[in-house]
Amino acid sequence: MSFGKLPYTELREILSVIYRKDPSVLLGPGIGEDAALIELGDDVLVVHADPITGAVENIGWLSVHVSANDIATRGVRPRWLVTVLLLPPGLEYKMIKGIVQQIRNAADEIGAVVVGGHTEITPGIDRPIVITTAIGIGKREKVIYTANARPGDFLVLTKGAGIEGTAIIASEFQHILKGKVSEEILLKAREFIREISVVREALAAFETGGVHAMHDATEGGVIGAVQEISIASGLSARVYEGKVPIREETLTICRILGLDPLRLISSGSLLLAVDPGKVEDVLKTISSLGIEVSIIGSLGEGRGVTLIRRNGEEEEILKPIEDELWRLLALEGTSRVKSLES
Amino acid sequence: MSFGKLPYTELREILSVIYRKDPSVLLGPGIGEDAALIELGDDVLVVHADPITGAVENIGWLSVHVSANDIATRGVRPRWLVTVLLLPPGLEYKMIKGIVQQIRNAADEIGAVVVGGHTEITPGIDRPIVITTAIGIGKREKVIYTANARPGDFLVLTKGAGIEGTAIIASEFQHILKGKVSEEILLKAREFIREISVVREALAAFETGGVHAMHDATEGGVIGAVQEISIASGLSARVYEGKVPIREETLTICRILGLDPLRLISSGSLLLAVDPGKVEDVLKTISSLGIEVSIIGSLGEGRGVTLIRRNGEEEEILKPIEDELWRLLALEGTSRVKSLES
Repeated sequence: MSFGKLPYTELREILSVIYRKDPSVLLGPGIGEDAALIELGDDVLVVHADPITGAVENIGWLSVHVSANDIATRGVRPRWLVTVLLLPPGLEYKMIKGIVQQIRNAADEIGAVVVGGHTEITPGIDRPIVITTAIGIGKREKVIYTANARPGDFLVLTKGAGIEGTAIIASEFQHILKGKVSEEILLKAREFIREISVVREALAAFETGGVHAMHDATEGGVIGAVQEISIASGLSARVYEGKVPIREETLTICRILGLDPLRLISSGSLLLAVDPGKVEDVLKTISSLGIEVSIIGSLGEGRGVTLIRRNGEEEEILKPIEDELWRLLALEGTSRVKSLES
Repeated sequence: MSFGKLPYTELREILSVIYRKDPSVLLGPGIGEDAALIELGDDVLVVHADPITGAVENIGWLSVHVSANDIATRGVRPRWLVTVLLLPPGLEYKMIKGIVQQIRNAADEIGAVVVGGHTEITPGIDRPIVITTAIGIGKREKVIYTANARPGDFLVLTKGAGIEGTAIIASEFQHILKGKVSEEILLKAREFIREISVVREALAAFETGGVHAMHDATEGGVIGAVQEISIASGLSARVYEGKVPIREETLTICRILGLDPLRLISSGSLLLAVDPGKVEDVLKTISSLGIEVSIIGSLGEGRGVTLIRRNGEEEEILKPIEDELWRLLALEGTSRVKSLES
């Protein structure tokens, strides 16, 4: 059994054990890990929890953004946060305070507030673990489901492919990249992590209208996100490699390590399924926030994801995407870095 | 820095960093760890998260009950659960499924439903860690605050003192108790853990009326719970040692180890502050569920907790209660068992 998520077959069995159908639950636990939807009269409560278990520098800050993203992709503002901090014995109080300050900063950045939580010193862990539950509330008829995408929708992507993975690799694999990549590129690449929140663009795009589905490109990268929308909506998808923005830093690092940027974890890159009649407005809205945005493909009747390579070759994506970061970690035989989220 | 919670001064500083006041938050993070209250029009959303980080047999089952208890003590039914499972590499799938089944069973027992979560294999942990966020919704004017207790209220306790601690010690300290305590007592003591939920009695008592405050007797035991209600409500409390039910098994184990049952962790023991005019009804309601219940003292004007010992001596409780279980663990120099919750 590998790190990160459990295999699909076992996850499916676990989900069937854990979940009892309930009329109040519009959307319960499922593979794909989107936020749960709970009916409260005309309103819908949107809830999502994610842990950050990898030893990462910005753990408190990341934890808030990663959980909040999954509320925002429902078209709902993440408003309330509950944070659980598990701290290794001996961790300096200065570090603890630093993590807490990060949580507060991230909450402020997205206009959310920490309402509760739990902090403890936990024996037997060698690094902090932070779990954030994010909660929001929206109007029932306006909440977005991943399954809502429609045939003819354009697929729109913000930022670029593999931005989170690029940042992680630039931080954690310096020993391999040293000498092969300039310090300047490494520095810029590490900074990509600051772009991990999709809350601003998700809510602005949703307000503009015509947005049928949104997905944060976490594990499996851009192609993984397209696949999730395609499967959830029961539609086929065509993605043009040449239209997916890939930053210089991502290209350089991926080329050296032999990774496909399109399959590299990319939290912070928001994938949207947008009505063709509204797509120009959505592009304008997102651009006006100073965020790069591109049409990378479209949805149609049928099933399956087709990737059209730069040379025109068509590649059918048949299996679930294994994230390139996990592949790299397996090659490296290291468990130092892990699932920033999953 | 010891295991479990951080020291008060540091917790206070952390809380001041993490929390930004927000008009939607009726009750935010604070020491005492009760559930947060979020205003939703005439309704109140009640949210609480707790981790279970000790290597315990019933970790999935306990995790649900421990978090759900803090919703029920607000007079609100815990309805929705989000569970995060962090699993050590190499854990057998059978074990994982067992934990998940426990979560489902506990949810069914209290009529709640798991709406979402996250499961992952986490390198660098040697035991499963389960974090449950519990959520409920109640009418704003009916939700109970710990600060709501009134002078003249009776203090009512369900089950007995130190029941959770008794179960933990009987499970984890068998090596010390062997030969000194009969197998029968150990077996019975271990079974106390099955009584950890306070949801049934809390909701039934609340429905009966006259309940001004409720608190689950976690860390610090019965005296700790009395102290929390006393401090939160700005009232004095008098507790009669002779009126606190202490089970045979608890007495025996505590006598051998030199522990005070009144200061021993006791999740499952619900402490209620009840209007004198309604106290008979509340006692009847709880008894009718087959749950032991007693009046153990009362609240009055002023400050401070007074414990009236069996011999009539009065003991002023001035400091925060250090739980007897933590003292035992420190004596034992072990970190095997830890904060079942905190």
